[in-house]
Amino acid sequence: MIGESRIVVRYAETDKMGVVYHANYLIWFEVARTEFLEAIGQPYAKLEEQGIMSPVLRIECDYNTPLHYGDVAIVRTRVVTVSGVRTVFVYEVYREGQEIEKEAPCCVGKSLHCLVSSSDFKPLVLKKAAPQLYEAYLSILEPEG
Amino acid sequence: MIGESRIVVRYAETDKMGVVYHANYLIWFEVARTEFLEAIGQPYAKLEEQGIMSPVLRIECDYNTPLHYGDVAIVRTRVVTVSGVRTVFVYEVYREGQEIEKEAPCCVGKSLHCLVSSSDFKPLVLKKAAPQLYEAYLSILEPEG
Amino acid sequence: MIGESRIVVRYAETDKMGVVYHANYLIWFEVARTEFLEAIGQPYAKLEEQGIMSPVLRIECDYNTPLHYGDVAIVRTRVVTVSGVRTVFVYEVYREGQEIEKEAPCCVGKSLHCLVSSSDFKPLVLKKAAPQLYEAYLSILEPEG
Amino acid sequence: MIGESRIVVRYAETDKMGVVYHANYLIWFEVARTEFLEAIGQPYAKLEEQGIMSPVLRIECDYNTPLHYGDVAIVRTRVVTVSGVRTVFVYEVYREGQEIEKEAPCCVGKSLHCLVSSSDFKPLVLKKAAPQLYEAYLSILEPEG
Repeated sequence: MIGESRIVVRYAETDKMGVVYHANYLIWFEVARTEFLEAIGQPYAKLEEQGIMSPVLRIECDYNTPLHYGDVAIVRTRVVTVSGVRTVFVYEVYREGQEIEKEAPCCVGKSLHCLVSSSDFKPLVLKKAAPQLYEAYLSILEPEG
Repeated sequence: MIGESRIVVRYAETDKMGVVYHANYLIWFEVARTEFLEAIGQPYAKLEEQGIMSPVLRIECDYNTPLHYGDVAIVRTRVVTVSGVRTVFVYEVYREGQEIEKEAPCCVGKSLHCLVSSSDFKPLVLKKAAPQLYEAYLSILEPEG
Repeated sequence: MIGESRIVVRYAETDKMGVVYHANYLIWFEVARTEFLEAIGQPYAKLEEQGIMSPVLRIECDYNTPLHYGDVAIVRTRVVTVSGVRTVFVYEVYREGQEIEKEAPCCVGKSLHCLVSSSDFKPLVLKKAAPQLYEAYLSILEPEG
Repeated sequence: MIGESRIVVRYAETDKMGVVYHANYLIWFEVARTEFLEAIGQPYAKLEEQGIMSPVLRIECDYNTPLHYGDVAIVRTRVVTVSGVRTVFVYEVYREGQEIEKEAPCCVGKSLHCLVSSSDFKPLVLKKAAPQLYEAYLSILEPEG
């Protein structure tokens, strides 16, 4: 499954280069991840209500073409790895209006997550701590390529 | 007492106008407030460790002259009102290099705070819940003018 | 005219109090303003393309009830003052699900704007520099109350 | 040369997990880079005044231990690669009070930059467009390890 989020560039997200400041793409990834988890019936807010958090362990991000105020970002999200302890999301950011089949994304990111207990930040095993989330991930897994 | 905080403009704080985005001044006020509370021996982090939070109830901010990347902001902070339930801070933001005695500040802000319990957000009486903070405020009160 | 913007709380917008950090409401006001201007056929990005910017001169904001991750904010936006040189927007923020007719907004804000030239930040007269925007504002003006 | 920047955690930088939100480390890297460039006599603001910008092409970041409000971050910055068109910075973030020689950093990041012309975002050759910056980089180069 590939999720698709539509994010309108905020003025606040631009910098003096006139483009979206690079750190803000990570916030978009998180917005896309939130929508993705909701789409698979596993809203992240519910997970935290159960005393489980899923912090980011690693980020990679390649910036190809800047986005501007007035643009709309389309973030295409997929899960490419699920193991007992780690989950990897990949995000491709397009500018609305681009031909997604033909053109390169403006930005490609990847985030690695684990699960921890809210009370003490101790790591949890996904399969045991949140078996439904684990099953949901498995059922929508996509190739990394 | 007038506190003085030195804040170097971050690239991330600018927007496509080429100046500091207006919402970021509120973050500077909070940085200045943190330093102010530390200077009077009442660090805010300690307050929260005691289960007390001091949320913002109201903000006012007048923007006169924009600041730029490469500038350093000087934030002059004072407490102008303390009552059983409310505290008011005033902030004057100058650009380092300005003649503070003669020139108008680039920005003037004001924040109104109460105290609440961390557990349920219920309001607390400053004098009772944090008597040392109350005494500290009284001893450094400045006129609003 | 009262504009209505729907803004999903981002994880990034929360702070360690577990609620939306107060400065982020100003960003929501700007998002709501962008949508409002688009709705009245005067997109702000187009204005800037004409070499005109509309910086914020003053902000006021009253925070009543905090919003949380998992909430959706409904921002109701209106223009309450238009003069030759100044425009005032008012914003009421509700939590999706509130009864807007009966319940108090979670947050109420106000922003004052002027127009300046992009090249030198010199003030412009709205009626002359952007007559269509001026007419548009007049036609959708709402009472402040 | 290893630069060292001292960054006090801002309340605004925390999220509802109670720790510094992961995207904010990228902002700290930029703050550290700004100080690093100033320390080697090549302030970034001056570069932009010459019509040259140095956007981020790629970010990598590993998050090991979260930082909290009340903590001070120590960011150790070095340049590990300089070529005609690319520069790579590495950042190690410690919590003030850690034994830097013995303990692992809380976070390690890397950023890849090119130079572009401010007018059209076309890539520039570092050695030709900013020869002094190129020489400065070469003289302070550090091993990646």
